[in-house]
Amino acid sequence: MLTIAVDALGGDHAPRPEVEGAIRAARSLNVKVALVGQEALVRRELEKHDGYRDLPICVVNASERITMEDSPAKAARSKKDSSMHVGSRLVVSGDASGFVSAGNTGACMAIAKMVQGKIRGVDRPALSGVFPSLSGKPVVMVDVGANVDCTPEMLAQFAVMGEIYSRVVLRVHRPRVGLLSIGEEEHKGNELTKAATPLLKALAVNFIGNVEGRDLYSGTVDVIVCDGFVGNVALKVSEGLAEMVKGLLRESLEATITRKIGYVLSKAAFTDFRKRTDYAEYGGAALLGVKGVCIICHGRSDANAIKNAIRVAADFSTGNINQQIEHELR
Amino acid sequence: MLTIAVDALGGDHAPRPEVEGAIRAARSLNVKVALVGQEALVRRELEKHDGYRDLPICVVNASERITMEDSPAKAARSKKDSSMHVGSRLVVSGDASGFVSAGNTGACMAIAKMVQGKIRGVDRPALSGVFPSLSGKPVVMVDVGANVDCTPEMLAQFAVMGEIYSRVVLRVHRPRVGLLSIGEEEHKGNELTKAATPLLKALAVNFIGNVEGRDLYSGTVDVIVCDGFVGNVALKVSEGLAEMVKGLLRESLEATITRKIGYVLSKAAFTDFRKRTDYAEYGGAALLGVKGVCIICHGRSDANAIKNAIRVAADFSTGNINQQIEHELR
Repeated sequence: MLTIAVDALGGDHAPRPEVEGAIRAARSLNVKVALVGQEALVRRELEKHDGYRDLPICVVNASERITMEDSPAKAARSKKDSSMHVGSRLVVSGDASGFVSAGNTGACMAIAKMVQGKIRGVDRPALSGVFPSLSGKPVVMVDVGANVDCTPEMLAQFAVMGEIYSRVVLRVHRPRVGLLSIGEEEHKGNELTKAATPLLKALAVNFIGNVEGRDLYSGTVDVIVCDGFVGNVALKVSEGLAEMVKGLLRESLEATITRKIGYVLSKAAFTDFRKRTDYAEYGGAALLGVKGVCIICHGRSDANAIKNAIRVAADFSTGNINQQIEHELR
Repeated sequence: MLTIAVDALGGDHAPRPEVEGAIRAARSLNVKVALVGQEALVRRELEKHDGYRDLPICVVNASERITMEDSPAKAARSKKDSSMHVGSRLVVSGDASGFVSAGNTGACMAIAKMVQGKIRGVDRPALSGVFPSLSGKPVVMVDVGANVDCTPEMLAQFAVMGEIYSRVVLRVHRPRVGLLSIGEEEHKGNELTKAATPLLKALAVNFIGNVEGRDLYSGTVDVIVCDGFVGNVALKVSEGLAEMVKGLLRESLEATITRKIGYVLSKAAFTDFRKRTDYAEYGGAALLGVKGVCIICHGRSDANAIKNAIRVAADFSTGNINQQIEHELR
């Protein structure tokens, strides 16, 4: 049975969702979970759950805690006994097959790169984001924020890593790989995308050329490659728009009695819709290119998101993604 | 009375929405409209509308037509009697105070830059996009696609132009100007944003520092500055997400009878919501930095969007935006 280490003190509401997510994973997935964090705190939360003692769950102490406000570089250097350091070390020692955290994304990436190290052939690890699409199939975007200034070579590596992730974790057959640009024609783009195009064409992936921002949700491409600045903007614009739609639609739906009744009757549709588009279903963002396995969740992750991230970490490990990346990039 | 020239043969459904939009504008706004395009085609469409002869509308012939498939640079050079050329020439000669087109965006920009020329002090004209926000106040983003590779100086000019546009056309008092980046802290960003920060701080605008993608819709900033590659991705990601939400929500709402009834009762809320978030209400994207006035609409614009773009062109002209830009950038 695989062991997945979970940062018990990462997210905004830690350790509640982390502990509950670990319990759900230990119950329903075939994994053992190591909860990493200040032991007293974690145990107190565990005690709230009946029957946890019968589950494959253990606690690994980590005396320090990294907050959302900590500077990633500084936290990586100075808090060497943080849950993120300890979790990544468990992966390196082989005591865990992967690490999941809903904490400070920058710190988690910096620590995973430092402690777990990079795969040979990878210039820079990249963060993958998974998005819902009109076709129902998830789309993976690489990079959504690890590297703000990229070389064409880095984009080619993102394509290779994203393609393997799509195939193995999202189970997409022969993923279509697109380069994010501002028009479908090859001559449309900036200096970076134009320089990356020949490199992407030379890869053994199913490269379909340029795609546009709207294709993130159209379902016409499975893997979208871009630099981490653009990817981060795309991710956060989406979050902002979703929040605005939710806020304004609720206001409009509550404005009259008739509308309110209508909303109550159609509520199941909204729940259904939310489930179909919920990022939590996809289980966090994988840091591709580190020697181990590191899955980073949104700070606001609930227990379900944590459970799904644990599943992704397990799939990532059993799918031999890193061996495949190393093979393709050597 | 101002005259606004309208490309009658620009959009996907031309000349129907263009002609209807022109008629609405001539009826309700204090403007004269010059419809530019192949005269026979335009007159045939006008004839469908009773009483148009009593309105301040005229037709200006342009023998050539630029399609969405035309290469912008080639169309600009070779189709010198296109509706876009003729429309821009009307602005230069003073026969019109502004030009509105729902045609090929690249061609329209190239022709406006070539025919109308640049304002002194502006390195490159930029396209502004207007977005709805949670606060109800519109947010303007510059650049949404005119310039894919930008210098820090260009971003500073975009800030100046966007701030004036927000003040004059959107009537925002003391607009807050933000630099689009991947975190609020000043050190977070790419080489371009880091180099642009000191230039933006030195401007006479209300610069509030870095903003993130989500702020496009949060209502916490009024003007967002970015390079045209990132801005175009932000715009198209938004379009793609909105389409996906619409498609999946409709599917969910039509899945059962109860939901369908609920949807019928709450329909007014959706109409209301659509109106509050409809880009057509904001009347197209202004090309900032050309000596004349050029407003570019979405190819799928309806008559209402065209009418609003005519209003924006008139406001742009009477607000002396170009004089203010020249004054600030000299």
